Amino acid sequence: MTRTHDTISFLSDYGLDDEFVGVCKSVIRQIAPSVEVIDITHNIPAFDVRAGGLALSRAVQYMAPGVVLAVVDPGVGTERRAIAVEVGDDGQAVLVGPDNGLLAAAVAMVGGARRAVELQNEKYQLTRPGETFAGRDVFAPAAAHLCAGVDLFDLGPEIDPFTLMPGMVPLPSKGDGEVKAEVLWVDRFGNAQLNLGPDDLVEMIGACDVYEMSVTSDITRRARPVASFGALKPNEVGLVTDSYGLLAVAINGASAASALRLAPGAGLTLKPL
Amino acid sequence: MTRTHDTISFLSDYGLDDEFVGVCKSVIRQIAPSVEVIDITHNIPAFDVRAGGLALSRAVQYMAPGVVLAVVDPGVGTERRAIAVEVGDDGQAVLVGPDNGLLAAAVAMVGGARRAVELQNEKYQLTRPGETFAGRDVFAPAAAHLCAGVDLFDLGPEIDPFTLMPGMVPLPSKGDGEVKAEVLWVDRFGNAQLNLGPDDLVEMIGACDVYEMSVTSDITRRARPVASFGALKPNEVGLVTDSYGLLAVAINGASAASALRLAPGAGLTLKPL
Amino acid sequence: MTRTHDTISFLSDYGLDDEFVGVCKSVIRQIAPSVEVIDITHNIPAFDVRAGGLALSRAVQYMAPGVVLAVVDPGVGTERRAIAVEVGDDGQAVLVGPDNGLLAAAVAMVGGARRAVELQNEKYQLTRPGETFAGRDVFAPAAAHLCAGVDLFDLGPEIDPFTLMPGMVPLPSKGDGEVKAEVLWVDRFGNAQLNLGPDDLVEMIGACDVYEMSVTSDITRRARPVASFGALKPNEVGLVTDSYGLLAVAINGASAASALRLAPGAGLTLKPL
Repeated sequence: MTRTHDTISFLSDYGLDDEFVGVCKSVIRQIAPSVEVIDITHNIPAFDVRAGGLALSRAVQYMAPGVVLAVVDPGVGTERRAIAVEVGDDGQAVLVGPDNGLLAAAVAMVGGARRAVELQNEKYQLTRPGETFAGRDVFAPAAAHLCAGVDLFDLGPEIDPFTLMPGMVPLPSKGDGEVKAEVLWVDRFGNAQLNLGPDDLVEMIGACDVYEMSVTSDITRRARPVASFGALKPNEVGLVTDSYGLLAVAINGASAASALRLAPGAGLTLKPL
Repeated sequence: MTRTHDTISFLSDYGLDDEFVGVCKSVIRQIAPSVEVIDITHNIPAFDVRAGGLALSRAVQYMAPGVVLAVVDPGVGTERRAIAVEVGDDGQAVLVGPDNGLLAAAVAMVGGARRAVELQNEKYQLTRPGETFAGRDVFAPAAAHLCAGVDLFDLGPEIDPFTLMPGMVPLPSKGDGEVKAEVLWVDRFGNAQLNLGPDDLVEMIGACDVYEMSVTSDITRRARPVASFGALKPNEVGLVTDSYGLLAVAINGASAASALRLAPGAGLTLKPL
Repeated sequence: MTRTHDTISFLSDYGLDDEFVGVCKSVIRQIAPSVEVIDITHNIPAFDVRAGGLALSRAVQYMAPGVVLAVVDPGVGTERRAIAVEVGDDGQAVLVGPDNGLLAAAVAMVGGARRAVELQNEKYQLTRPGETFAGRDVFAPAAAHLCAGVDLFDLGPEIDPFTLMPGMVPLPSKGDGEVKAEVLWVDRFGNAQLNLGPDDLVEMIGACDVYEMSVTSDITRRARPVASFGALKPNEVGLVTDSYGLLAVAINGASAASALRLAPGAGLTLKPL
């Protein structure tokens, strides 16, 4: 039995300066008029599959049941597959996007792929003069048709979920009395989320009131675990347990990323002090 | 009798680069599926409670009846209260946000607070691993539950509206034949809205064809009151009565703020010429 | 018989930093509560009628039937007319905006104007303290009232479509064995769309594996026609047939506009190599 959906959660690197997002929504509107589209974000840095995958995996657990439309697609028009991946015990969500790792962390976060297809059925795509805008021509129509009641398997041939491109999730590593962690994400406020939770930290090098944090050879600072930004003194560097349960390097009312030159992918070392 | 609402007007400093806004909307969608969320803006400068409060007060008189969700919250996770404030003779709107002055000017604009509560009832909040994202965990759920029919007083204990944090609204002042005014807001086009209406100006220093406007010791320009940008000559500085009935320093087709180095909070002096 | 509409496609140069867009949507919500507003984009560069008109003409063929609300309006408050233009054999769409050329290319793209009116009926406008925000006071209300069932001719007196301000669409020109083309648009990814389709190019100077492309006297590059970005070698300049069927100067995974200093309006020359 086909399940219908009434929400599409939409993430992309299309930005909001061009008409890309609006055109995708216009296409959806004409296929599935009563569907609600929720913009997760469209300002993923251009071509940054890793950043898109991380944002998706942070958001996915809060999304309304339905279809997730995700497009960060540097390989548009090439051999990379366009896919739809069903997740959940009763298929309560389907993720639609390119098979380039973008969906992987989010799929894992909600229990793994149940079934997947490659979007090959042109009946559910738009005819087009060029191959550069798969969001409009392939992905948005697939998402909308799923909401309108089209069966997953009508969108194209089934593919083995094990063949899907994996995402890259960097893991923290334990060295000699220290932890090497990585910045996953810098948010608008300059908080730098690490790939490390507060329990991981304690388990790896023990509980401490203050840690020594080395970002590069010339940036070393004391960093104190706290429950909220407000617990920090002016300019003090904190390790705040953020809203996703991971540690974020933070300064109250200022950008820790600017102060400590932290960007996504940057490594840093923590040791007890 | 509880009044239900079907619109949430949403303003924040979350920006559109991260998934914050999308996640809040996803939370709302699952609590109150038929509610329409209207984005007022999410690009209030980070932590800028004053700018957020002013934007809210400009927009509030045009908003659809319902719930206003406003989050500019530098004190997230601290002792600052999370509140819901009902306004209007028959409770036609409720403003939800932090008690840091953000809501104050808007509340005043629509007649003042009628009843208020502190958002303490965890039944209407999300469980969370960290205390840094009250928009998702406290404010958006409260807004959505109000729309879904939850009574204001179910969200937490009543508080006295007189204890709410006031907003700061700078007033123009009259000196010796001159008016000292302040820039409230610079819009995308570079128009600099003053805390001064055309009637205030005339009342304080009389009607004039042209005023002398001093921004700093080295920037003094002639400024002419006009009804629209188009009435100005190229590069002429005007005092245009803007869409909110206040005077805005403007140059036709160009940014007055750039030309005259005006930013929110900047002071300037006007005198008859 | 009046046709009702349930979608408003909204494009402007209001940006997303101020509350302009949210206020227009709030106004619409109160006039036509069940209408869906789809944002095409609001980041048209300030006052850039040409860029707005081109974005509108690219998007219009994908828009849902209904009302198009377009506001890039440097002449707000002056004598320029505010208009509504009906298009389509059975009036399936109405475009609302200033009569400054903004709507012209989109109107032409969908078959030309059928009927047009000047928005003069103040019954369908908001009273206002100033004349600087016609989106809120004139255009959004007109769009919403059309959706709510108000007849086009109730919005104001009919005007002759031939008197509407035309848009400027630059045409490519053929010189001595070469084509002079112009950049219409640079998208977020740095692709520079030309006013030239692949068939135009072949017709004008013949099919070639590679063309010589001169941007200025000091920037000359080989440019190869390809079907997708992925067909290009690293740093190779391509002429990709884009999603609208026009040629775009592109570099795979990088910004051709940055590399070749291309901006909207820039001219370039192509000749066979």
